[in-house]
Amino acid sequence: MTTAMNDQPLTRTTVDGEHLWQRLMALAVIGATPKGGCNRQALTELDREGRALLTQWCEAEGLRVRTDAIGNLFARRAGRQSDADPVVIGSHIDTQPTGGKYDGCFGVLAALEVIRTLNALDIETERPIELVAWTNEEGCRFAPCMMGAGVFTGKLSLEAARGRTDGDGITVGEALDAIGQVGRDADCPRRFAGYLEAHIEQGPILEDEEKTIGVVTGALGLKWFDVTITGMEAHAGPTPMHLRRDALLGATRVVEAVNRIGGAHGPDGRGTVGAFQVSPNSRNVIPGQVTLSVDLRHRDVETLASMVSEFQNTLAAIERDTGLETQVTPTADYPPQFFDAGCIDAVRRGAEAHECAYREIVSGAGHDAVYISDVAPAGMIFIPCENGISHNESEYAAPKHVTAGANVLLHATLELAGKAT
Amino acid sequence: MTTAMNDQPLTRTTVDGEHLWQRLMALAVIGATPKGGCNRQALTELDREGRALLTQWCEAEGLRVRTDAIGNLFARRAGRQSDADPVVIGSHIDTQPTGGKYDGCFGVLAALEVIRTLNALDIETERPIELVAWTNEEGCRFAPCMMGAGVFTGKLSLEAARGRTDGDGITVGEALDAIGQVGRDADCPRRFAGYLEAHIEQGPILEDEEKTIGVVTGALGLKWFDVTITGMEAHAGPTPMHLRRDALLGATRVVEAVNRIGGAHGPDGRGTVGAFQVSPNSRNVIPGQVTLSVDLRHRDVETLASMVSEFQNTLAAIERDTGLETQVTPTADYPPQFFDAGCIDAVRRGAEAHECAYREIVSGAGHDAVYISDVAPAGMIFIPCENGISHNESEYAAPKHVTAGANVLLHATLELAGKAT
Repeated sequence: MTTAMNDQPLTRTTVDGEHLWQRLMALAVIGATPKGGCNRQALTELDREGRALLTQWCEAEGLRVRTDAIGNLFARRAGRQSDADPVVIGSHIDTQPTGGKYDGCFGVLAALEVIRTLNALDIETERPIELVAWTNEEGCRFAPCMMGAGVFTGKLSLEAARGRTDGDGITVGEALDAIGQVGRDADCPRRFAGYLEAHIEQGPILEDEEKTIGVVTGALGLKWFDVTITGMEAHAGPTPMHLRRDALLGATRVVEAVNRIGGAHGPDGRGTVGAFQVSPNSRNVIPGQVTLSVDLRHRDVETLASMVSEFQNTLAAIERDTGLETQVTPTADYPPQFFDAGCIDAVRRGAEAHECAYREIVSGAGHDAVYISDVAPAGMIFIPCENGISHNESEYAAPKHVTAGANVLLHATLELAGKAT
Repeated sequence: MTTAMNDQPLTRTTVDGEHLWQRLMALAVIGATPKGGCNRQALTELDREGRALLTQWCEAEGLRVRTDAIGNLFARRAGRQSDADPVVIGSHIDTQPTGGKYDGCFGVLAALEVIRTLNALDIETERPIELVAWTNEEGCRFAPCMMGAGVFTGKLSLEAARGRTDGDGITVGEALDAIGQVGRDADCPRRFAGYLEAHIEQGPILEDEEKTIGVVTGALGLKWFDVTITGMEAHAGPTPMHLRRDALLGATRVVEAVNRIGGAHGPDGRGTVGAFQVSPNSRNVIPGQVTLSVDLRHRDVETLASMVSEFQNTLAAIERDTGLETQVTPTADYPPQFFDAGCIDAVRRGAEAHECAYREIVSGAGHDAVYISDVAPAGMIFIPCENGISHNESEYAAPKHVTAGANVLLHATLELAGKAT
């Protein structure tokens, strides 16, 4: 692989931040919501419009745009070595129903701005560069999320993905056909020399520590469980405290334990009870049953396993102490992911070159890059988002952070693709 | 007032328990549910049928049946002193939608069996005895509960009660007219020499302590609150534990405190969180808001006030410790009620005369007798119900306890009404 070795320091190559910002705002017009967010769900007519605008911008930069069979959109800038595996940069442009302007779009438009900068400065790379916009990352109209990256990496078959339906019974296949985004896998890259994805953090860590760049080293592993706690429904008035079997009181011990377990394995431990239903949910009836979800995450697989043990011990202790019955069902299990050391280093050097305050960070959420890292060297660049909020119309990233993230992406892309001399 | 003083010991006067049991089963046929319960809600066609059967049985005993303006049904057995205020005995025959055979019906049919026994043994009383079946005690079709007793005692105006609607928009007035149960208050007793109500306990205390009779000394006071805990909704993955404001974690402290407060003021303290809603209630989102109900009860008014203070201190501590916001709204407030000493003693002597294992007990639930005790000397007799379960098709009281409760009612009624010599 060619490395960047020429007389022009990479630090002098910077993107046009204002132009990138304007394009973020322009793309967000398609599906704009009254509260300033964006509703442009996957494979809708608005997604078609978004893809058309992106395609137009890509073609204006001389890129060759294609889609593969699941609609992942690629836009190629040739390299000096035309047969070399490309460096792929991008993210997704579909949004949540009450989504923002930055989640996904930032990564795709930063990639486009990187390419535009290379064009403007007439910089040739050894390897081709492919911009990518993955299909249906959000998974809100059609489950599962990260569908395009899932099909690309073989985690989901094309046939299974095309058969998934939305709430109206429309299949992914029908929706893809309707927006004319079905292409041929053979026309798109199947092997990547590297994959880089810039993204808003979707969490509060960078903002809290006043960092501009998160050098993402991997993704937390995740274990999900459904728990049912069963006690005895009874009248709140006539039933004295010592004769109760209150399922809600037992469930509070689970909530506390899950939070304690998350906190005891910091800073990368997470423990969350998000879904929680009480039955019969009546003011003067002692709850007879509670169902709740448990979400445990950690970057280290052994630690995650011991967090699960601690959680299971808590359930056993509740049964022993209270006479309540507990039932637990695992519902999801993803191991921790580690990004490629070369990609991580390229991102770090980009942050250093642009004198950005940065820290290493582990992604707590799923991203296309997490899937791609199974089949190619991958890395991610995080920038702060206000109050850590995303999947929300009020999602916001500051222009200076958007620019910084794109500059780091430019630096790392050039390092991976190799500046031709 | 005449007291029971003659040569025949009262203990020798007993009801026909088997006949009472058969009538309980016969009444339960009207509205019988597949699971062995009864659905005979107030002022329905089934309620009309139940009232008709009761009326027929009362008239067969020579009683004069009338209803008042809100449909409370009275059946009079004359006393030697025809102008004396009557001793009133009974309960209600309406049920919950998934109700049982015993709640209410036991008290009314025990009263009828008491009268039948007096007739069979040709025992005359000084005071008249009135059987009563109060209208709409359950409050499930039309709120509020204890409607007939509430109108009788002036807690609710007749006009307001008649204006209440069910889920189909039918008013109490329309429903009362439809089943032909509107009578004249002037035809019914307005002043009671005493009121006695036999009822299943609806709690587990008597069963747990192997007692046959609960000598009810009053009813717990009750304070209800609605609480809202507000934190910050955020993604479960990217948000580290120390930067969270998890409303559910705060709410668990309320649940624990309310239960602890109930237990710390035993045996008559109660603390219950029955209703509990989490928002947005999604598996991988940290809960941003929880709304919950708090129900605190005690027999002593000062203790109840200090329980409320402890609960409010807990909310203040949560705000101080966690940065969560709490909001609390009082929604109901009933002071403790104390039954009449004479009625309590009459019930106790009845239990002793029949050699029943008994204990004093405070009612945790509302009953018609609790309202009546504001305007007349009142008392209650509890019998055990299996596992403390009521408002449930599986509600069950053992025949021996049904018989014992009716015998105690007979004894106490004779004591209050005075056996004529």
